[in-house]
Amino acid sequence: MTLDEIYAPVKDDLVLVENKLAVIARHDIPLLSKLLEYALINGGKRVRPALTLLCGKFYRYDLDVLIPMAVSVELLHIGTLVHDDIIDNSPLRHGKSTVSRTWGSNSALLLGDYLFARAGKLAATTENMRVIRGFAETLMTISGGELREAGTSFDMTDAKENYYKWINDKTASLFMMAAECGSTLSGCPEEQIQALKEYARNFGLAFQVIDDILDFVGDSSKMGKPVGSDLSEGAITLPSIIFAEKYPGNRIIQRIILEKDKSLVAEAVEKIRSSSVIDECRDIARNYYDNAYLSLKKLPDCEARKSLEALVDFVIKRNR
Amino acid sequence: MTLDEIYAPVKDDLVLVENKLAVIARHDIPLLSKLLEYALINGGKRVRPALTLLCGKFYRYDLDVLIPMAVSVELLHIGTLVHDDIIDNSPLRHGKSTVSRTWGSNSALLLGDYLFARAGKLAATTENMRVIRGFAETLMTISGGELREAGTSFDMTDAKENYYKWINDKTASLFMMAAECGSTLSGCPEEQIQALKEYARNFGLAFQVIDDILDFVGDSSKMGKPVGSDLSEGAITLPSIIFAEKYPGNRIIQRIILEKDKSLVAEAVEKIRSSSVIDECRDIARNYYDNAYLSLKKLPDCEARKSLEALVDFVIKRNR
Repeated sequence: MTLDEIYAPVKDDLVLVENKLAVIARHDIPLLSKLLEYALINGGKRVRPALTLLCGKFYRYDLDVLIPMAVSVELLHIGTLVHDDIIDNSPLRHGKSTVSRTWGSNSALLLGDYLFARAGKLAATTENMRVIRGFAETLMTISGGELREAGTSFDMTDAKENYYKWINDKTASLFMMAAECGSTLSGCPEEQIQALKEYARNFGLAFQVIDDILDFVGDSSKMGKPVGSDLSEGAITLPSIIFAEKYPGNRIIQRIILEKDKSLVAEAVEKIRSSSVIDECRDIARNYYDNAYLSLKKLPDCEARKSLEALVDFVIKRNR
Repeated sequence: MTLDEIYAPVKDDLVLVENKLAVIARHDIPLLSKLLEYALINGGKRVRPALTLLCGKFYRYDLDVLIPMAVSVELLHIGTLVHDDIIDNSPLRHGKSTVSRTWGSNSALLLGDYLFARAGKLAATTENMRVIRGFAETLMTISGGELREAGTSFDMTDAKENYYKWINDKTASLFMMAAECGSTLSGCPEEQIQALKEYARNFGLAFQVIDDILDFVGDSSKMGKPVGSDLSEGAITLPSIIFAEKYPGNRIIQRIILEKDKSLVAEAVEKIRSSSVIDECRDIARNYYDNAYLSLKKLPDCEARKSLEALVDFVIKRNR
């Protein structure tokens, strides 16, 4: 299935999300307007808004609250990306110069703050306390998770456990929020909300593992950033961890991370690509996919459920 | 009146605020805990929590919502300071190395994000939609205001107008939120909420004008930062603007701001201190004080009102 086919049950409503983002991007402060337009109108796949809307499809599909919520989730996501790109000093995102590189890190910092607030205001329009609390808690989890990761000195023993905590906090938490908010706002029974959250957690983990694989094997022109970016920026992700575990005698990963020897990145990427590490990582992502798929069995069988199944499958198979 | 005397009606409750801040500072992520303790337990005057509580004193003084709200306002305030100090690359705040200087700007960025989220979660515990919306809007105003200021190229014609907008957004907006939330949560009639907001707006403007005066005439050891810090960081505040207006032939301010010639800062500070500019700025602050005082006349006469009057008076007369 193509992404268009997967999104079919919420296609028209994703147009409303896009329109709302365009309205938000117009602001009477000229610099803010430029920054918003640059960051929000990005041709992105809008996976998180789609997830929000699809999770709202099982019961009372109320666009008055689901559209603001889907937009809120996307704004929160973009805000965290804008701040991440400051922290990682990243030059590119999706083939485009990052906000911080284009407009400077101070403007990017303030834009992120504004996006968090704008997202919070939209979440508040739902007047649903669970959703509002969930919004705040998700931002706490995301920023707290980055601080846990930053405060961890690299240690092979705990590397994998730390990695899973990190991707849970930085990626899965927002997927879970999207699922919880979409389902809560449509009056979903609690057991099914929990099943959708479990689906979203596994979806998010699969999504991030695939993202981290693509950083090694992806086509840099399609990815919009050079292969090996994570290692270059000092981020040790699953492929590096599994490689270091499998080949304890080869300390190339440790030398890149601990001795900050970036000249070794290309060699490490090549070694990982030509080993079985990538297949092992794909198996792990596939396992998350299976768990996500199983969680959906607790939901009524309908078009939205088929789309949610197909969405994880799409993410697993994507090459960009 | 001393600050202790002014705070008397809410003295015990400010202890609860302080205790709650100490609880929030304990976190199971070690780096986050260190950052929180450093930023939150700072011996500050807690003006905004006091304002929140005092504005809650006129009707139903409900500590179950007022304490979380007072803490929320302080966390939002501290979050914006932490981000401001990254943007301004400030070495010192209240005589202490800033979070960004001590722990690096990346940790400071994430700490600020976490504080916004934590503050939002506390605001949400009030379950009052006006308060929750107001919280989000205030953070939009603060970050948007900084972006308006950042996007304004220095122009003497608009300097004063831009300055008033800027201090309204960065300082008065949070004072207004404190007053609105405190009074709303205690069931204050709308007319009196508006009067307290108007009080708070003028209080905030007076507070900031005095702050900007102290940057020129303060005792650097008491201020905890060098005299002339604003000009050094390229911030043109009221004393500089009035000086440039009064002495159009002397272009020292323009040279510091436009040509970034920091070697002239000491001379500019001296010129401003020895002119009538500071007195003119004090008159402006005094005018805000008068407006704040008048607004309070719409509130019932009680201990809390006396404290609110005395609080602005204290701020006007402070020397640090």
